[in-house]
Amino acid sequence: MDLLEKLNWRYATKKMDPALAVSQQKVDRILEAIRLAPTSSGLQPFEVVVITNAELRRKIKAIANGQSQITDCSHLLVFAAWDDYTPERINEMFDLANEERGFKSEGGENYRKMLLDLYPPRGAEVNFQHTARQAYIGLGVAVAAAAIEGVDSTPMEGFDADALDELLDLRARGLRSVLLLPLGYREAANDWLVSLKKVRRPRDSFITEIK
Amino acid sequence: MDLLEKLNWRYATKKMDPALAVSQQKVDRILEAIRLAPTSSGLQPFEVVVITNAELRRKIKAIANGQSQITDCSHLLVFAAWDDYTPERINEMFDLANEERGFKSEGGENYRKMLLDLYPPRGAEVNFQHTARQAYIGLGVAVAAAAIEGVDSTPMEGFDADALDELLDLRARGLRSVLLLPLGYREAANDWLVSLKKVRRPRDSFITEIK
Repeated sequence: MDLLEKLNWRYATKKMDPALAVSQQKVDRILEAIRLAPTSSGLQPFEVVVITNAELRRKIKAIANGQSQITDCSHLLVFAAWDDYTPERINEMFDLANEERGFKSEGGENYRKMLLDLYPPRGAEVNFQHTARQAYIGLGVAVAAAAIEGVDSTPMEGFDADALDELLDLRARGLRSVLLLPLGYREAANDWLVSLKKVRRPRDSFITEIK
Repeated sequence: MDLLEKLNWRYATKKMDPALAVSQQKVDRILEAIRLAPTSSGLQPFEVVVITNAELRRKIKAIANGQSQITDCSHLLVFAAWDDYTPERINEMFDLANEERGFKSEGGENYRKMLLDLYPPRGAEVNFQHTARQAYIGLGVAVAAAAIEGVDSTPMEGFDADALDELLDLRARGLRSVLLLPLGYREAANDWLVSLKKVRRPRDSFITEIK
């Protein structure tokens, strides 16, 4: 498997084929890759909602600039970040780690205390900006995982997040939507982007080396 | 290549072996994966600084809580996001795309105009929050790429970003550091984390399906 070849194969698919569904096995592998993605202090401060329901996807398309991939894909992923770091959420992850590993360490408990002292007092908005960033790590891993599976995916920020939060009742769960990622298969004959050259800044204007 | 196996193999390496260097070929492949990562509107609003210089890495360690991976790794990546979206930066990417593809499209030019109308007036702080998120996509892809190469990497937010910006003179280039990613090889005998179970939230508390 050559990751670079896969990343060159992928692109932000503009037209997906509504007749083709991604297999559950492939979706599960992509979701598992997201679950394994690293996050700050291992808190995993986001969740993923996987939507196959057709009516709901029609409603989401209406609040997402009518982007057709939302209804033409087979699985729509919504990345929803924690609206805040609360002591409960921080403790839950540290408790889970202790339980899974079968012991408490002094270092781990000191680190927990540091986060409890630091994060909740910063306020929800600062914390949400931080949790949202972690969801973007998940997106990066998801896009790579999908490409490896030969599955098309289109990262999207262009939607009304408040309206989506309401539609999915995310705020009641302490979540805020930050990203959409439709999974499906390109309908090449009707996709204006598929045949255009992938454009990236040249290496020498993107990377600097200090030796 | 099984990505999930590779993601399970990787972990936030706490002790790297200073005697082992990642080959230039592997570093180049990881950097190329980052360059190919998707970003919002394809603007690639961040850069990567690759530091091998030992003295500079010692100085960075001092402003990054003394984390030893910074000097024990062979290549330290600094992800530095644009401090703002300016008309010049937006135009540069659209001009590059037109040049590489050999034509201007009406849709592309309308989209350029929309971004020119929308982004610069929002102000530097809002824009930086957005560019920083894009760098996190790059980090997600980088971590996957490194794992596929069998290279250890440790994502880090714990450093004094203002001090690092000054040390690398990033602000003069319109950049702000947001993430560090040391690349190297684990020194398992001295790494307290290597043998601990990887802990993630269970699937059913991380993923919701709406059918």
